[in-house]
Amino acid sequence: MDFFFYPASVAVFGSFKRGAIAYEILRNIVEGGFKGEIIPVNPKGGEVEVGGKKLKIAEKLEKNVDVAIIAIPAKLVPSLIEEIGDKIKGAVVISAGFSEIGNVELERELVEKAREKGVRIIGPNCAGIFGVHADFFGSFEVRVKKGGLALISQSGAFGGAALAMGNEEGIGFSAFVSYGNAADLTESDFLRYFADDENTKVIALYIEGVKDGKKFVEALRYATAKKPVIVLKAGKSKSGSKAAQSHTGSLAGSYEIYKGVFAQFGAIEVEEMEELFDAAKTFEMYESGGGRIAIITNSGGPGVLATDKAEKLGLEIARLEDKTTEDLKSFLPPQCSIKNPIDLIADADYERYKKAIEVVCRDRNVDALLVICVPPIFIPSEEIAKAIIDAECNKPIIVNFMAGELVREGVRVLNAHGIKNFPTPERAAKALYWLSLRRAFKERSIRY
Amino acid sequence: MDFFFYPASVAVFGSFKRGAIAYEILRNIVEGGFKGEIIPVNPKGGEVEVGGKKLKIAEKLEKNVDVAIIAIPAKLVPSLIEEIGDKIKGAVVISAGFSEIGNVELERELVEKAREKGVRIIGPNCAGIFGVHADFFGSFEVRVKKGGLALISQSGAFGGAALAMGNEEGIGFSAFVSYGNAADLTESDFLRYFADDENTKVIALYIEGVKDGKKFVEALRYATAKKPVIVLKAGKSKSGSKAAQSHTGSLAGSYEIYKGVFAQFGAIEVEEMEELFDAAKTFEMYESGGGRIAIITNSGGPGVLATDKAEKLGLEIARLEDKTTEDLKSFLPPQCSIKNPIDLIADADYERYKKAIEVVCRDRNVDALLVICVPPIFIPSEEIAKAIIDAECNKPIIVNFMAGELVREGVRVLNAHGIKNFPTPERAAKALYWLSLRRAFKERSIRY
Repeated sequence: MDFFFYPASVAVFGSFKRGAIAYEILRNIVEGGFKGEIIPVNPKGGEVEVGGKKLKIAEKLEKNVDVAIIAIPAKLVPSLIEEIGDKIKGAVVISAGFSEIGNVELERELVEKAREKGVRIIGPNCAGIFGVHADFFGSFEVRVKKGGLALISQSGAFGGAALAMGNEEGIGFSAFVSYGNAADLTESDFLRYFADDENTKVIALYIEGVKDGKKFVEALRYATAKKPVIVLKAGKSKSGSKAAQSHTGSLAGSYEIYKGVFAQFGAIEVEEMEELFDAAKTFEMYESGGGRIAIITNSGGPGVLATDKAEKLGLEIARLEDKTTEDLKSFLPPQCSIKNPIDLIADADYERYKKAIEVVCRDRNVDALLVICVPPIFIPSEEIAKAIIDAECNKPIIVNFMAGELVREGVRVLNAHGIKNFPTPERAAKALYWLSLRRAFKERSIRY
Repeated sequence: MDFFFYPASVAVFGSFKRGAIAYEILRNIVEGGFKGEIIPVNPKGGEVEVGGKKLKIAEKLEKNVDVAIIAIPAKLVPSLIEEIGDKIKGAVVISAGFSEIGNVELERELVEKAREKGVRIIGPNCAGIFGVHADFFGSFEVRVKKGGLALISQSGAFGGAALAMGNEEGIGFSAFVSYGNAADLTESDFLRYFADDENTKVIALYIEGVKDGKKFVEALRYATAKKPVIVLKAGKSKSGSKAAQSHTGSLAGSYEIYKGVFAQFGAIEVEEMEELFDAAKTFEMYESGGGRIAIITNSGGPGVLATDKAEKLGLEIARLEDKTTEDLKSFLPPQCSIKNPIDLIADADYERYKKAIEVVCRDRNVDALLVICVPPIFIPSEEIAKAIIDAECNKPIIVNFMAGELVREGVRVLNAHGIKNFPTPERAAKALYWLSLRRAFKERSIRY
C-alpha cells in the first residue's frame, strides 16, 4: 500500500470551484508541499489557482499515477474506475451515496470494476488519507505535523476532529486514513500496513464495528507484536450501539467480545477521545514501561493526586532503595519529602530537579518517573523543562507541567525536545499506566 | 467574613523588593484594580513602585484596615498580630514555618494572639485569597476573570494551578481561598460563607483532610442546600493518603467515610482535577438538570461516543415524542437520523441546528440537550454557535464543539454569551451527568 501513503503522483477528480471538496483536497495537497506530480481532472478542463500556483485541469487522465482521489457524484464512480483503472494503482473514493444510504448495488459494482482492473479502493464515503512523511495530504482535513502516529478512523468526522485536536496536543502523525464504508480495504488491512511502516511508532484506531472479525483479530495480533495499538471503540452501550448501526451501517456487535479481543491481543483500549490523544502522545515517546513508578513534584497536592490515580490504576508507588533515600537526603533541604512521592518543595530549581531525577532514575526499584511542576512565581518553567531534558535517565519520564499560561514557555521547550506535556497529574499517571500495559503484554507474549 | 472578600482597605506586610512574596501580592492588588486603600508596611519604610504607581511604605500600620496580608518570617507573626490586632478585622498569613514543619507551639501562639484581639486568621502557610467581585487579588497567584466559582483549596499550589488552568477553560471566579494550615478559619467556615455569598453560584473544594468532621458535615449540608458544591478529595489511595499526611499534616482518614458523606450530603464528587473544572463550568451555567437527555450532532461518530458515555453514567437517552420525530422529519433532509442521537449530518447550518434544538427542547421527554458540532470545511463554527445562542430553549444545553483551531471562533462567540465549551463528547456527557446528580439530590431533599 505504499502507493497510497508514499505516492509519486496523484490525480484528483471533481469540481475545482473554490469550496468544493475536490478543490479543498487539491489545495491541501499543493499547500502541504507534495513533491510528486499533481493532476486535477474534470471533463470541463480549464485552470485552477491554488496555493499560489496555477494548475491546468486535465479533461481526462492521460498519464499513469499512483493514486486517484475521487470526489464526483457516486453513480459516476464505477465507470470512472473502469475508465482509468489501467492508469492507477489505488483510488480514494470520497464520494458518498453508496451502501451507507442503501445503495448496496452501486458499491458492489464499484468493487467489481476495481477488482477487474487490479485497483485497490479506500472508501467510498470517506474523508481521505494523509501520508505525512511524503508530505501527501490527500484529504480536506486540517494538515498535521510529521511524527509517529498513524490514525485509522472509521468515522471521517471523528478523524478530522482528532487531527485538529492532535495538533493542539502536540502530536505528530505518520499517516491518517478515513476508510468510510470499507468496500475493499478495511481497518485490518491498514493495521497490517502500519505495523510494517517504519515511520509509524504507534497506531490508533477508531472503530464502531469491524467487517470481518477473524481478519481483524489476525491483523491485531500481527500489529501488536510490532508496535503499540490504541483502540477507541464506539457503540459500547445499548443506545450507542444502535446509533452506530444507523451511522456506519455496520453492526457494532457485542462490546464484551471486542473488549475481550482487545485485552487478549494486546491492544491498549481507551475509553474516551481525550485518552486516545494521551495514549498516542505516550507511545510516540516510549514503547513501554514498567509499573513501579516514582513521582517527583515541587508541590504536595498534585503529587497526592498523581499517587491516588496511579494506585487506582494498579501501578505501584515504588519503594525506594536506601541508597536513593540517602542520596536524596544529601542534597535536598530538610523540608523536602524524600519518600515517594518525592516533594522537592516550591523553590526547587534546575539543579534540584536534575539531580533528583538522576538519583531516582538509578534506583533499581523504579521503572518509570512522573515529574510534576507547578511553577512558583520566582522560577520560570523553562528552567525546570531544561532540567528534565538535561537529566541523564534511560527510563521513561512522563511530565506534568501545570498551570496554563504560567507553563507555556516550559512546555514549548519540552516539545522542542520531543517531550510531550500532560496537563493534569491524573492524565500523566494514566500515561504511565498505558506504558505498563504494553510492557505486561510484551512480557506475556515472550513467555508463550 | 465580607471584610476578607469585599474589603474596603488592605495592608500588606513583608519585603517589597521585586520578586519578593509581599511585592508580588502588592503588585497583584494594584494591577487588579482594587478601589480601596492599599498600605504596604515594612519597618524600613521607603517607597515601592508597582503597576505604574509609586506607593509610600509605612513603617508601622497607623490606620485601621479590613485585612492585613502578612508575608514576614514566621516567628515574627504572633507579635505583629498583637501589635496591629486592634486595627484589623482579619489577617491572611502567607508565611510558612508553623505546624506544617512541626512548629505547633508558634501556631498556637498565633491563634491565641488573634483570639485575644478578635482577629480572624486565614492560613498560615497559605497562598492568599481573591475577592474577585471586589477586584481584590490578595495573593501572588494569577488573576482571574469575574464569575461564579468560589474555589477553596487546602493546597496552595493546587489552587494556583487551578486558577491558571481555570482561565484557560474560560471559568469565571467569585473568590479563591488557600487556607493552608487552617489554624483558625477552616474549609467549613468558607463553605458556609460562600453558600451565602450572592456572587458565588458554585463552590469547589480541594481537600486532603478536614480538621473537624462534624463541623464539615454540617457546613456541607448547609452549603449544598443552597448551591452546588464540587469536591476533589486527594489522598484516596493508601500511598496517596500517606503522602497527604506528610504534605498537609492532616490525617486524610478513611476515604470510604468521606465518600459516603459527600454522597449523602449532596456534594458532587469529582475524581480528577480536569473534572473539577468541567463541573465548575457546568454549574456556572446551570444549577441542575434532569437525566433524560437528547443529543444533537452533525457527525455520527462523536454522537455515538457521547451516547456511550451518557449511558455508562446512568443518563437516559430520551425516547422522543412522536410529535418531535414528525416535526424533525418535516424539515430535515432524508439522510438525517431523527432518532436520538439526532444526526443533522455534515452540511447542517444555522437554520437546521436552531430549528432542531427548538423542536427537541419542546419535547416533554427531554430534560437537557447535548449539542455537538464538528465543523465541516464549508460551514464556519461561529454560525452554529449563533444558532445555539439564538435557539429558544429553557432547558440546559451543553455544547461540544470539537476540533481545536477549526472551532476557535465558534467557541469565542459561545463564551461571549456565557456558554462554555466542552472539548470532547465524553466530557460534555459528564457535564449533563453532574447536572442530573444535583437534580436528584434536590428532589431527594424536598421529599424529606
